[in-house]
Amino acid sequence: MIDYRSDNTGRAAPEILEALVRANNGTALGYGADEWTARLQERFRELFETPVRVFPVATGTAANALSLAAASPSWGLVYCSEAAHINTAEANAAGFFGGGLKLVPVAGPHGRVDPDAFARSLAAIQPGQLHRGQPAAVNITQASDVGTVYPLAEIRAVAEIAKRRRLKVHMDGARFANALARLECSPAEMSWRAGVDILSFGATKNGGALCDAIVVFNPELADGLAVQLRRAGQVWSKMRFASAQLMAYVENGLWLQLAAASNAVAARIAGGIEAVPGLRLVAPVEVNELFLELPGAAMDALEREGFQFYRRSPTLARFVCRFDTSEAEADALIAALCRNCAAAPARAAE
Amino acid sequence: MIDYRSDNTGRAAPEILEALVRANNGTALGYGADEWTARLQERFRELFETPVRVFPVATGTAANALSLAAASPSWGLVYCSEAAHINTAEANAAGFFGGGLKLVPVAGPHGRVDPDAFARSLAAIQPGQLHRGQPAAVNITQASDVGTVYPLAEIRAVAEIAKRRRLKVHMDGARFANALARLECSPAEMSWRAGVDILSFGATKNGGALCDAIVVFNPELADGLAVQLRRAGQVWSKMRFASAQLMAYVENGLWLQLAAASNAVAARIAGGIEAVPGLRLVAPVEVNELFLELPGAAMDALEREGFQFYRRSPTLARFVCRFDTSEAEADALIAALCRNCAAAPARAAE
Amino acid sequence: MIDYRSDNTGRAAPEILEALVRANNGTALGYGADEWTARLQERFRELFETPVRVFPVATGTAANALSLAAASPSWGLVYCSEAAHINTAEANAAGFFGGGLKLVPVAGPHGRVDPDAFARSLAAIQPGQLHRGQPAAVNITQASDVGTVYPLAEIRAVAEIAKRRRLKVHMDGARFANALARLECSPAEMSWRAGVDILSFGATKNGGALCDAIVVFNPELADGLAVQLRRAGQVWSKMRFASAQLMAYVENGLWLQLAAASNAVAARIAGGIEAVPGLRLVAPVEVNELFLELPGAAMDALEREGFQFYRRSPTLARFVCRFDTSEAEADALIAALCRNCAAAPARAAE
Amino acid sequence: MIDYRSDNTGRAAPEILEALVRANNGTALGYGADEWTARLQERFRELFETPVRVFPVATGTAANALSLAAASPSWGLVYCSEAAHINTAEANAAGFFGGGLKLVPVAGPHGRVDPDAFARSLAAIQPGQLHRGQPAAVNITQASDVGTVYPLAEIRAVAEIAKRRRLKVHMDGARFANALARLECSPAEMSWRAGVDILSFGATKNGGALCDAIVVFNPELADGLAVQLRRAGQVWSKMRFASAQLMAYVENGLWLQLAAASNAVAARIAGGIEAVPGLRLVAPVEVNELFLELPGAAMDALEREGFQFYRRSPTLARFVCRFDTSEAEADALIAALCRNCAAAPARAAE
Repeated sequence: MIDYRSDNTGRAAPEILEALVRANNGTALGYGADEWTARLQERFRELFETPVRVFPVATGTAANALSLAAASPSWGLVYCSEAAHINTAEANAAGFFGGGLKLVPVAGPHGRVDPDAFARSLAAIQPGQLHRGQPAAVNITQASDVGTVYPLAEIRAVAEIAKRRRLKVHMDGARFANALARLECSPAEMSWRAGVDILSFGATKNGGALCDAIVVFNPELADGLAVQLRRAGQVWSKMRFASAQLMAYVENGLWLQLAAASNAVAARIAGGIEAVPGLRLVAPVEVNELFLELPGAAMDALEREGFQFYRRSPTLARFVCRFDTSEAEADALIAALCRNCAAAPARAAE
Repeated sequence: MIDYRSDNTGRAAPEILEALVRANNGTALGYGADEWTARLQERFRELFETPVRVFPVATGTAANALSLAAASPSWGLVYCSEAAHINTAEANAAGFFGGGLKLVPVAGPHGRVDPDAFARSLAAIQPGQLHRGQPAAVNITQASDVGTVYPLAEIRAVAEIAKRRRLKVHMDGARFANALARLECSPAEMSWRAGVDILSFGATKNGGALCDAIVVFNPELADGLAVQLRRAGQVWSKMRFASAQLMAYVENGLWLQLAAASNAVAARIAGGIEAVPGLRLVAPVEVNELFLELPGAAMDALEREGFQFYRRSPTLARFVCRFDTSEAEADALIAALCRNCAAAPARAAE
Repeated sequence: MIDYRSDNTGRAAPEILEALVRANNGTALGYGADEWTARLQERFRELFETPVRVFPVATGTAANALSLAAASPSWGLVYCSEAAHINTAEANAAGFFGGGLKLVPVAGPHGRVDPDAFARSLAAIQPGQLHRGQPAAVNITQASDVGTVYPLAEIRAVAEIAKRRRLKVHMDGARFANALARLECSPAEMSWRAGVDILSFGATKNGGALCDAIVVFNPELADGLAVQLRRAGQVWSKMRFASAQLMAYVENGLWLQLAAASNAVAARIAGGIEAVPGLRLVAPVEVNELFLELPGAAMDALEREGFQFYRRSPTLARFVCRFDTSEAEADALIAALCRNCAAAPARAAE
Repeated sequence: MIDYRSDNTGRAAPEILEALVRANNGTALGYGADEWTARLQERFRELFETPVRVFPVATGTAANALSLAAASPSWGLVYCSEAAHINTAEANAAGFFGGGLKLVPVAGPHGRVDPDAFARSLAAIQPGQLHRGQPAAVNITQASDVGTVYPLAEIRAVAEIAKRRRLKVHMDGARFANALARLECSPAEMSWRAGVDILSFGATKNGGALCDAIVVFNPELADGLAVQLRRAGQVWSKMRFASAQLMAYVENGLWLQLAAASNAVAARIAGGIEAVPGLRLVAPVEVNELFLELPGAAMDALEREGFQFYRRSPTLARFVCRFDTSEAEADALIAALCRNCAAAPARAAE
């Protein structure tokens, strides 16, 4: 079996679990008042080149929903891509934590919010139109849910439109490292310098184990969030075991190495099928995910050969590379795709 | 420094972290669809001698609040001890997850709900008195927040009163193992056989690291809870790392050994100060916590000598034993207490 | 000035205010325990030919949001037309009262839910796909938000699809009387006999003053709703003044006379412009609303001549008839439309 | 039958209904954009001698809960008297609208918050103690729920303690007029000049019919509240019928005349039983309510003689005077009390 189902089906990077085990030493105050968590604050301040507050949380859903609840009043409208994870895959956690806030899908290419479409959507609701709710925040999923990346200028464009109406900007960075590795810019450039107020900082999908984090750039959001996290059951009493994971994750550039590795394997696969007739990628492969249009019979064949992946629709397959997906596994997929999928149109042409 | 601050300041049991590291092998489906989580279901079914659903969660606050939200409609009244953790220390997480449900403190000895007081409180609100909200559930903290244990008959008495009005029974078992070790009964006897519908199954305070669990006995509560957990951000994508911890926790009776150890140290301290004039325990020491009335000056002296503990009030000190608190540490505390605290009343008698 | 802005800009029917004044006699128990509210129950039981519970509420938004909150768990998905009032004009009250429930817009003609589109949307979310939330209810707006009416067979079709998946069926009957007058069927046929579980029974837009109502057909929804209404601040202590309005509203068929009157005026206008080139109705005129595509200049001209109406977009005008809109006012609008709007295409054709 | 059950069992003042009927004239924009509501703003600005925002709402529960939700974040603690209506009689509406905010009862004499007890309660929770939630607001019920009145100095004392910790001050003025009539001060003195940020302005219990109001003094609370009211279903589309009631209520001092009348009748009864042995008032009679300790047999006798009242406990009876309770009705109650209740202790003394 070769597993392309998700980057959350994979192992954790050994360095992260080793750090967790090393933290099991002596006693430490609970609920984040320990030294590991204090060092985490300092480390992320360096990483992002600005004062930040970092809150480890159990899951990306918690990171997203609590970030949005911090960024929006309960009557707020939160703009996001139609394909955004917060809109399609988190059981409306944002609406739940946000006391009934509402997501407003915005069109855009390849899972991204198009700045112009966002501007038009925003213009349609003027202050005082209370029956519509009030625009409060915009969500940028970086990398997007179809494996593409916002260029920095596009993040800034969305953020500028948002700021003109005093909306907050939230980045869902479940694959933040993958996007960073792709853009080869600094964490600061891809976040607060581009206008991001609050960031869901993903680790799980990129070799993490049991925690992600919220990184708060806009200080006015932090104090309330701290209380909300507590009542949301997201503040571990033995926080050191979470903070140690996050420290190891960014230590010596581990996170970027892991992300570069999964990105590279995805690029290898994309390259290997590029010229093959009948294999159509529905979005450019910019990080570690490939979305391929495939006939059902081709998907059946791939599965019979031991490939695991998700069917997003009867004709759309998703393949996700993990940091430890090997080149051999990539080549096996390329071969299988050529064998099972390319054949059909070739024959059709006969 | 000798740390008596809390059982959440301590290390994890090495067996638990070893299991976590062992789980880092191969790929596994996310969000609980893995083999570890499947085996966890089976293991807890054996442990509790009945079909159960087990949901690993990040924290005890999450376990409590989501259990209560499952057990009560949003207009529900949830009865609990005045001292209950859900009432004093979880930032009203129950009210938050429960959509505005309300906690109703009930009097009782030593942090427990007194069955008669509960019955009276319940009788004061009749069906149809809509302006009061409607009784929905009762919370039993076992062991209690002042370190005492409900005898089985008392759990049953509370549960019977509850059932007569169709209330659900929730047990906050943050120290479930400590209570079990004390009562020397089976997990089944202390839970569903006594009338418990849903249990917050604590591990963190007893040698766990990053997860507790919800154990559902009443099947009608489970399906809705499963969705709520997802939207609450409490379902790890790499759930195997949580389930592996919980498996190790109960493997070969580890949990009971750990609990027996911390209970024993607390008992040793209690025994050591029993006959000392001027040292008054405010509650019997039945698990791993001691609550002592102490003058401020005595507390100052203890701290100067390197003892760490919590001041619950200017004259009330709490000492908590961990599974790895040593007998030597216990004896040191006894000696320090005698030295610093017992003296005062003796002199006063001169 | 001739006012076509909304049916909520109009007067109340005098009979309704007279009944309110007549109720100002003697003392009466509060919060719905009065004789007027008891008689209201009885009267609506007759009207709907089945046992019902009727709860007067202040507004249609309250009726809709609390109905949906009763019909759906907080993690529920509620299907509705994209144009539905609950989706576009109630500041996400449903999400708020529903603890974060999510509205799922479904395509369909003229503001209605298309049964096939609904079935497909529902099929896309299978039980167990917890990350999507779970289908819980469907909303039918009768009459629709663009002034059309579901035929009985279409209500039944939507309801049958819903029932197969155990969804509840909510009807937003803000213009229930207008739809009833149009279909010339019984209240029972258009509600519970067609599968409706709970109904927002509008009065305000049809000559009411300060209250609408929720009518509950499915008894399992009623008791919880009764408590929710209390905590939602929707239970007047002097309920008799609300119940008296609702009694007068249905007395001697008043509600149907009022609705027939506003429907007739709208039909008169629609008839008057039918043959006029350049005047395009975007939906058939089936109750008391007309939606016309008009160039901005034409709308400006109408306003200069004293007509009041809403611009739904730069090229879409809405005209709403009230029960007391006169035939003369209708004829004035027809004339003005012909004068100002029809000219342009005629000239364009030269 | 003579009805002393509540001031909400009574009639509306005819002037109020007449104003409602007079408002039924012509068309008017919906949702508060009408002339009546504009004039209401102006009128209350004069009445309170400061810029205010006035929002008519359906009930006192809505006024209280939405005021507190505006004054507190969802993790807030709201201090109130144990006897406060928000704590005992509104089905935890505050917790519901407030997203899980928690009420913290504070001791005090006769249904009032004692400033010292409040200060102590507040001091027990320091900033940073996130597990307790965070103090956010204090509620003052004026007049109190046992019919007493805070002197101005006491309101100011509570407000000053609150302001030092940046808490907001909410006044539940369900019987605002009765308290005002008692204190003979200005509305400004009893509200914002004493530190009140937001006021539930009651009318229903004092001759109103179908609406109360929220009066906002602190402008930072108003804009968010306006949206919340809309989504809470508390903004009537035909708002003029509510605003007209409130205008009539304060016109020519009607509200104070009505309150003075019910206060006077209660004082007459209190005076009439003052010297009677065996009749004990549990609180001074400062507005229109009397709370009397009575044996069950005495209560039975009163009921047999046709008096209606509430039994607050087996030995506590509440009698409430309405604006139209007559002196004859008062004298009848005095006589009945003397006849049925006073006798017992007299005999007991034989």
